[in-house]
Amino acid sequence: MNKNDFARTPPMGWNSYDYYDTTVNEAQVRANAAFMAEHLREYGWEYVVVDIQWYAQKPGTRRQEFQYIPFSHLEMDEYSRLLPDPERFPSSAGGAGFGPLAEYVHSLGLKFGIHIMRGIPRLSAHLHGKIKGCAVTANEIADPTMICGWNSDMYGVRNRPEGQAYYDSLMELYAQWGVDYIKCDDICNLAMLPHKPYAARHEVEMIAKAIEKCGREIVLSLSPGPALLEQAGHYGKYANMWRITGDFWDDWSALKEMFWRCELWQDHVSPGCYPDCDMLPMGYVGKGFGQERKTNFTLEEQRTMMTLWCIFGAPLMLGAEMTLLEDDPETMSLLTNREVLGMLPPQCRPRQVVRDEDKAAWVAYNASEDRCYLAVFCLSDGGAQVQISRREVQQALEDVGMPGQLVLWGTELWCGETVEDRFDGDSLTFPLTAHGCKVYALSHTKDEQP
Amino acid sequence: MNKNDFARTPPMGWNSYDYYDTTVNEAQVRANAAFMAEHLREYGWEYVVVDIQWYAQKPGTRRQEFQYIPFSHLEMDEYSRLLPDPERFPSSAGGAGFGPLAEYVHSLGLKFGIHIMRGIPRLSAHLHGKIKGCAVTANEIADPTMICGWNSDMYGVRNRPEGQAYYDSLMELYAQWGVDYIKCDDICNLAMLPHKPYAARHEVEMIAKAIEKCGREIVLSLSPGPALLEQAGHYGKYANMWRITGDFWDDWSALKEMFWRCELWQDHVSPGCYPDCDMLPMGYVGKGFGQERKTNFTLEEQRTMMTLWCIFGAPLMLGAEMTLLEDDPETMSLLTNREVLGMLPPQCRPRQVVRDEDKAAWVAYNASEDRCYLAVFCLSDGGAQVQISRREVQQALEDVGMPGQLVLWGTELWCGETVEDRFDGDSLTFPLTAHGCKVYALSHTKDEQP
Amino acid sequence: MNKNDFARTPPMGWNSYDYYDTTVNEAQVRANAAFMAEHLREYGWEYVVVDIQWYAQKPGTRRQEFQYIPFSHLEMDEYSRLLPDPERFPSSAGGAGFGPLAEYVHSLGLKFGIHIMRGIPRLSAHLHGKIKGCAVTANEIADPTMICGWNSDMYGVRNRPEGQAYYDSLMELYAQWGVDYIKCDDICNLAMLPHKPYAARHEVEMIAKAIEKCGREIVLSLSPGPALLEQAGHYGKYANMWRITGDFWDDWSALKEMFWRCELWQDHVSPGCYPDCDMLPMGYVGKGFGQERKTNFTLEEQRTMMTLWCIFGAPLMLGAEMTLLEDDPETMSLLTNREVLGMLPPQCRPRQVVRDEDKAAWVAYNASEDRCYLAVFCLSDGGAQVQISRREVQQALEDVGMPGQLVLWGTELWCGETVEDRFDGDSLTFPLTAHGCKVYALSHTKDEQP
Amino acid sequence: MNKNDFARTPPMGWNSYDYYDTTVNEAQVRANAAFMAEHLREYGWEYVVVDIQWYAQKPGTRRQEFQYIPFSHLEMDEYSRLLPDPERFPSSAGGAGFGPLAEYVHSLGLKFGIHIMRGIPRLSAHLHGKIKGCAVTANEIADPTMICGWNSDMYGVRNRPEGQAYYDSLMELYAQWGVDYIKCDDICNLAMLPHKPYAARHEVEMIAKAIEKCGREIVLSLSPGPALLEQAGHYGKYANMWRITGDFWDDWSALKEMFWRCELWQDHVSPGCYPDCDMLPMGYVGKGFGQERKTNFTLEEQRTMMTLWCIFGAPLMLGAEMTLLEDDPETMSLLTNREVLGMLPPQCRPRQVVRDEDKAAWVAYNASEDRCYLAVFCLSDGGAQVQISRREVQQALEDVGMPGQLVLWGTELWCGETVEDRFDGDSLTFPLTAHGCKVYALSHTKDEQP
Repeated sequence: MNKNDFARTPPMGWNSYDYYDTTVNEAQVRANAAFMAEHLREYGWEYVVVDIQWYAQKPGTRRQEFQYIPFSHLEMDEYSRLLPDPERFPSSAGGAGFGPLAEYVHSLGLKFGIHIMRGIPRLSAHLHGKIKGCAVTANEIADPTMICGWNSDMYGVRNRPEGQAYYDSLMELYAQWGVDYIKCDDICNLAMLPHKPYAARHEVEMIAKAIEKCGREIVLSLSPGPALLEQAGHYGKYANMWRITGDFWDDWSALKEMFWRCELWQDHVSPGCYPDCDMLPMGYVGKGFGQERKTNFTLEEQRTMMTLWCIFGAPLMLGAEMTLLEDDPETMSLLTNREVLGMLPPQCRPRQVVRDEDKAAWVAYNASEDRCYLAVFCLSDGGAQVQISRREVQQALEDVGMPGQLVLWGTELWCGETVEDRFDGDSLTFPLTAHGCKVYALSHTKDEQP
Repeated sequence: MNKNDFARTPPMGWNSYDYYDTTVNEAQVRANAAFMAEHLREYGWEYVVVDIQWYAQKPGTRRQEFQYIPFSHLEMDEYSRLLPDPERFPSSAGGAGFGPLAEYVHSLGLKFGIHIMRGIPRLSAHLHGKIKGCAVTANEIADPTMICGWNSDMYGVRNRPEGQAYYDSLMELYAQWGVDYIKCDDICNLAMLPHKPYAARHEVEMIAKAIEKCGREIVLSLSPGPALLEQAGHYGKYANMWRITGDFWDDWSALKEMFWRCELWQDHVSPGCYPDCDMLPMGYVGKGFGQERKTNFTLEEQRTMMTLWCIFGAPLMLGAEMTLLEDDPETMSLLTNREVLGMLPPQCRPRQVVRDEDKAAWVAYNASEDRCYLAVFCLSDGGAQVQISRREVQQALEDVGMPGQLVLWGTELWCGETVEDRFDGDSLTFPLTAHGCKVYALSHTKDEQP
Repeated sequence: MNKNDFARTPPMGWNSYDYYDTTVNEAQVRANAAFMAEHLREYGWEYVVVDIQWYAQKPGTRRQEFQYIPFSHLEMDEYSRLLPDPERFPSSAGGAGFGPLAEYVHSLGLKFGIHIMRGIPRLSAHLHGKIKGCAVTANEIADPTMICGWNSDMYGVRNRPEGQAYYDSLMELYAQWGVDYIKCDDICNLAMLPHKPYAARHEVEMIAKAIEKCGREIVLSLSPGPALLEQAGHYGKYANMWRITGDFWDDWSALKEMFWRCELWQDHVSPGCYPDCDMLPMGYVGKGFGQERKTNFTLEEQRTMMTLWCIFGAPLMLGAEMTLLEDDPETMSLLTNREVLGMLPPQCRPRQVVRDEDKAAWVAYNASEDRCYLAVFCLSDGGAQVQISRREVQQALEDVGMPGQLVLWGTELWCGETVEDRFDGDSLTFPLTAHGCKVYALSHTKDEQP
Repeated sequence: MNKNDFARTPPMGWNSYDYYDTTVNEAQVRANAAFMAEHLREYGWEYVVVDIQWYAQKPGTRRQEFQYIPFSHLEMDEYSRLLPDPERFPSSAGGAGFGPLAEYVHSLGLKFGIHIMRGIPRLSAHLHGKIKGCAVTANEIADPTMICGWNSDMYGVRNRPEGQAYYDSLMELYAQWGVDYIKCDDICNLAMLPHKPYAARHEVEMIAKAIEKCGREIVLSLSPGPALLEQAGHYGKYANMWRITGDFWDDWSALKEMFWRCELWQDHVSPGCYPDCDMLPMGYVGKGFGQERKTNFTLEEQRTMMTLWCIFGAPLMLGAEMTLLEDDPETMSLLTNREVLGMLPPQCRPRQVVRDEDKAAWVAYNASEDRCYLAVFCLSDGGAQVQISRREVQQALEDVGMPGQLVLWGTELWCGETVEDRFDGDSLTFPLTAHGCKVYALSHTKDEQP
């Protein structure tokens, strides 16, 4: 098995976190899955991911004080493996775990994912719980100094064969349930250890090995960010996605900053390897956080976000409560633009052309279809005539393999307007609104460069 | 009650750690106490301190792997309070705790001390254990992110009334047992939190308040070091001693470095407030660590250590297994020199005269007895003629309140030789051996300075 | 000579910086000196200090771009020593330097001070200028990597005998001029070298030696801050004052923060050794900066500032243009309160009683006059009933040597109101306005403590 | 002009630094150039680079104290531009500069390069020197706070049009001389500013623009390293090479560390963009440093170095005094292996297969010639049977574009031995000597992957 085969294109799906925080239940997951199957599947959206603390009892009931109630009761099997809270996930009762829910999601033609915290439950370590297929108990594999800085559920797992056995037993269980995607948290950049932020690298390796052993193609996503640039090789060797940012919300400054992050990581996008810009906070979000709202992003900002994620090649994980999109054609239009989604790798190779405080531009080239894209973004707070250098666009396209000369003739992918060459001498000018963008599919000559 | 009254002079005693590590048992403590009473009490030695993990079962049995066995069984009462391991401390059985052992120590005319880890047992937090006199359970007061970096026993206690209640219940119990001295660990400088090393300051305050409430005069000692100079005021307000160094062992480079530490902290020695240079690794040490040995320090180095600790005013906590001192007159001579011990505050106020790579000199002045001391140290690895400026010695003595002019006539406190003024013009020359010292009680004129 | 004799009490004076920045001229200095002699001398104000770049031509003429014009012409003698700009200081012409101005200041019964930048003029190093009494040239003693981060005039001086010779030649010249006070800048905490902020320690030593050699009692003041607490001993050995703060201006948050700084440094105030809180930005300030204004501090805040500086024992260096105080009785009242000024050491020993976000309290005890002071400060932005613990006040006074029991009967030093004991049980309540203070001279019983 | 066209393959040449330090003279440069033309040019070696301080008088004459004599006399023209020291470079006299020497080098069919320090001479700033084609003087464009931490010659240039004018005047002069290559120092990572190590980024841009304006194809090389990974995009946009390491010498630990550096930078090698591993310290080096020696590297280590530099795609800059290679066939053999040199990009795309403490392996694929390479390195201090995973080799080759399946049949490039498939199941074993390597040109099947 080659982990890069698990996700030949950036995963597209839905994640429960942005709307539900820790509180999502089975009915809600099913409703969202059904919506996706009916309205979004045909555009490539396919993962349905249950985020953090599905194993916790009554999460969210002390939200004023705690996001994660310290030392709360966690559902666990006899082998120190966490199980879905049966109160919230009734179909999991009687040891079925997420099997029935996964089966339902699969029945819709979709894939099923879960969030896990790195490690082994702290309580099990203190109680010397059993490990499946292994003589030693949980206290022997838990590392008491490796904790998460914001959640009290787990201890890190020591780098020893019995630790591997524990992760093997987890993946065996998840494979049995039918899990297709794992978002592993507190592993990509450890907040507790600012001087050793990738001290859990051995756990990344152990989880990757366990996935390989389990025989099921499970996409591995690492959180939280910001990922460490100098570890790009390690992430890419073991995982499919890694978060290059802290939690991303509907805030322009964070979106603007993402342009810098994408610049940093653009050389590390390849089939099966995706720097992850976090969920798309569109539609309705924030309910579980006590701040339910329509996204703070304007429509222009959302187009900017979708365009950047797509041309850069980030996974697309929708944060919106999908059932509320029924009457929201605007948001739906952002999620169903086949042309924009078509820029996602591996069809395309991306390259930033330029970025400064006021603007950014990216190109992508799809060699198999011999198709060029150019996206131009206005990062300033007022509208602007954004100027881009013809030579730099040409150069960037050559860098990603385009033969011949670019011809500025094509179609804007959001509004459909056609453009002819607007290059005024050496530069092209785009009239953009504040925080807005234009993205074009463009032509080029077939001739080789002189 | 005023905590500065609990220890008007730097505490002198014995601590089980240097010899026994985690393994000390009741018989051993009693034997050492008996030795102290018979041989050292008359010189001022009085505290008998049981160091770390007296509550743990079979500590030290996996010493190759762990100093502290992770998640090992801890003896605990119904109120989340740790109790002595009855296997090692038989008299503690049946709920007696350290009461009988303390009573024995008191019967010898000595005082009894224990080591504690900051916080509340992790297991109790996970099991939602009770807190005495308090409606909430341990999970509500334990802070899951406040852990010790090298020991898995405890969680820090949150800064809330119920946290205070827990510490109150601890001190109530310790007072009941007859504890006179508490060495609280993982509190003075938190290894886990290099960016917030004094994040447990509220626990220092809570423990100090609990001691005051309990009504017993319990000396409070904070570990580990290095203490933070900018927190000198806080340490001095709430504690009697605070470690200004990491663990100190029988290594010359660490001893040499202590001269720098003492320089830094010399303005912070006052009655009831003592910067702590850690235990004196003399005689036999290291057995529990699997490295039993006669101290690596030479006799000269030990004189240097004793002289520095005494003139600076550090607490004196002997690390040696005392019963092995029966036939060790050399070590005994270091512990029973009344003149040297007489330099300890509050009788004396200390001041460093000079320090560089090769030498150091300190003075102290005892105003009540109108007595001056001068200690000169050779810090270089070869013997040397150490030169000290007369003016600087005079200045330093004035700074600590000596009226009149120093007259260089007096007695060396280790060898008894008398000296006459050796000042050659402006400087005095001392022939010293490598790492050695001379310390003099000197005369001065009674006349006021012009 | 003993440098601690040069300033037995904290220096009080005026400094040209706060009002004139780099631009002050002779007439202005003379006018301020005359004002001081007539109106303030009798209260202890005596130093008249010419601050930075008195040697520069046309400083301040490009104030929009630069505070210090890079590479501007500097007046220099044949021995690489800077001289006053004769255009601004006409009496310095013909090689007289600051001699005539110092003579005038002395004739008024006052003392004369100058600011210098650490080091030797960069230009002289590049031109291989001569050094007085020394065979080598400036290039040999200038350290090309030791520069100031905000001023281009100087290079640091290497730690070698010829470097000492240069500083000797400087102090010889300054002594000849009649300089009584030197504020040496870019030496106490080097902004360019955040990892080695006290890398100029050898220059502190060289300057101190040069002062001693020159035979004139010249007060040495080190800038800028914040000084390094762990170097307290070094500062105190060689200098009379050292800045414990960055530049201090008329901003409440900076004044509030000074309470924390004073707490840190309170153990390091002694005769001849003064942690320096920087100038007092009162009256009119800021003209040279293009921001002439009456101080932003309210009257209450200025009382708080004066009270803190005095009870803590900081030098008092007035920043106001004094000639504008003629019609400003309010500001004058702050500068001429003999009772408040009387708290300055060495008569008094200070001690902080308590400090938190909302309040602070300090005591001081004058043993020679057997007089106690208590200052209470409101640090919150609204007025408050500030409560102080009777026991803590008593304890703090004992710490600074007061015998007997405090009796709360005395006079408030700013408004003259008398108070009787307002202790309500264990605490005393003071009604304070926002950012305001009360400071009392109080009585105590003569009886010894039990 | 496109800077990536200046160096379509990694530059290969000779640099005077490793052997001569600051002292090289014209005769020595000519002799080395002649040797290169006769013996090495045919293998691709073409640049002859005069390293640091060619403008300084009598450099190296105080080598015990200083590598760079502070404030020494620098040859300069009327426009603040440094000129070759005519004593060492006689042909430069009379304003000819490096013109004649460059002409000679060109006459040999080679290219000529020089080292420069970022910035403008400090002396000129202090003397207000002229700038060509510009009304302002040097003091206006020099930034007095931007200095080099180890050399006193220059100030950084401010980011303003007049600063650009200065760099334009420099490149105009260099183009006139016939310079083909500039190694700009103190620019890639500023030792003086650990918190802002790329604060000279604007000077990189200014130099790149000045090169473009000058109309001559001048390769731009940035030093010193380590370059900052997150600035990879900026380096690649403006420069041809950037040092990814501090100064590299003949020390195994530094060579071993280079494997980690190459791993970090492997995604940033492309035509015209080369992460730079510094000079090759082979043959005789160190004379100017007072440590003339045959390289400390063993022959095996040198093969390892050459193999890594070539397969990774680093520039090859020889440090040896070439005239001493006449009788050194062993070193010559390392420099003239066409097969090994043939792995340099752009023909090849490299990829690391694996790296740990004991071994490393790299592959490269030459698509135009459809040729595969595999290099295996022994990083441990004893010889070893190094095992490499077949799957990982295959995967890495696919990543760099190889179609089909690798067949392990080919030739070792250093010793010529042929190998047949030694894969034992999933892994291949190579018997390697300590610090040694094997590098193979291998075959692959033409079939597409299934």
